[in-house]
Amino acid sequence: MTTEEYTHLRERGLTQEAAFRGQLVKVRVDTVALPNGETAQREIVEHPGAVAVVPITADGRILLVRQFRYPINQFTLELPAGKLELGEKPEETCLRELAEETGFTASNLERLTEFVVTPGYSTERITLFKATGLASSPAPRDPDEFIESVEVTVEEALAMVRDGRIVDAKTIIGLLWLERNS
Amino acid sequence: MTTEEYTHLRERGLTQEAAFRGQLVKVRVDTVALPNGETAQREIVEHPGAVAVVPITADGRILLVRQFRYPINQFTLELPAGKLELGEKPEETCLRELAEETGFTASNLERLTEFVVTPGYSTERITLFKATGLASSPAPRDPDEFIESVEVTVEEALAMVRDGRIVDAKTIIGLLWLERNS
Repeated sequence: MTTEEYTHLRERGLTQEAAFRGQLVKVRVDTVALPNGETAQREIVEHPGAVAVVPITADGRILLVRQFRYPINQFTLELPAGKLELGEKPEETCLRELAEETGFTASNLERLTEFVVTPGYSTERITLFKATGLASSPAPRDPDEFIESVEVTVEEALAMVRDGRIVDAKTIIGLLWLERNS
Repeated sequence: MTTEEYTHLRERGLTQEAAFRGQLVKVRVDTVALPNGETAQREIVEHPGAVAVVPITADGRILLVRQFRYPINQFTLELPAGKLELGEKPEETCLRELAEETGFTASNLERLTEFVVTPGYSTERITLFKATGLASSPAPRDPDEFIESVEVTVEEALAMVRDGRIVDAKTIIGLLWLERNS
């Protein structure tokens, strides 16, 4: 949609002000010109972007990671994922996170799609990959990340999407994407 | 997953500090106890929760809304959606946003599922509905929201998911969910 232009809908940034600078999250408040000439404030969470990966084993199972997600106070099963470090290409982030979170490397990465998760207030964009040709390759973990990997069949994973045991949007997209294209 | 307990993965909140209070977004920084006894900081974007709806017309088309999303500098096509106002039930938010964004009301709402979009740093939870029995019922819009509704066939919508013209996660989930259950 980027190349299209709907002038009657477009907002234009006028000023930016840094409002919060954390380790993970940065927030700025922009003043924008609305299509009707008025101005408004937009609060924006700046995020470097992320990747998620559907890792498929030789016998067709999927590797997920279990972790406690403090912001939602809930244990989740999610695709391996992580944010882009400075200067990393999405493919590099994908292989790094896969190794850190599951202990596997992959000989084949296929880019499935790219999406945004909260376009109303965040810049975050996630590139979704499929990984095959997995081989054991343990890597050091983030010291403050406590996770474990879980191997499930495609049918189990889709059943967990259906009944709400899998609640994470990128994971739901990855599993439904896999289903419709396999 | 909420009822399960994996003690070796759980983090426990110790203190909370408000870091930014905007109109839409609030950020707090919590100190948490990690499973290994160490402490760490977690930055959390507080969000009241939201709904999204797949509105289906009598002839089986889907209503989407086109808008400019300033945080990602891009025009998008998304499901009608919006955040919960204080005291609203998700069904009420759903009907309100549907009327505001498309000019239609619905005689039948079906809850499809619920998911989180950024469990690493946000509390946001989205309840997804399907709406049928649509009837024209224009409602006043948000004064600083410039949007237009667009009617597409299911096939067009799914083609736009496939080729990346639709980039919004909740919209992708709604359309893929519809496809696999219809």
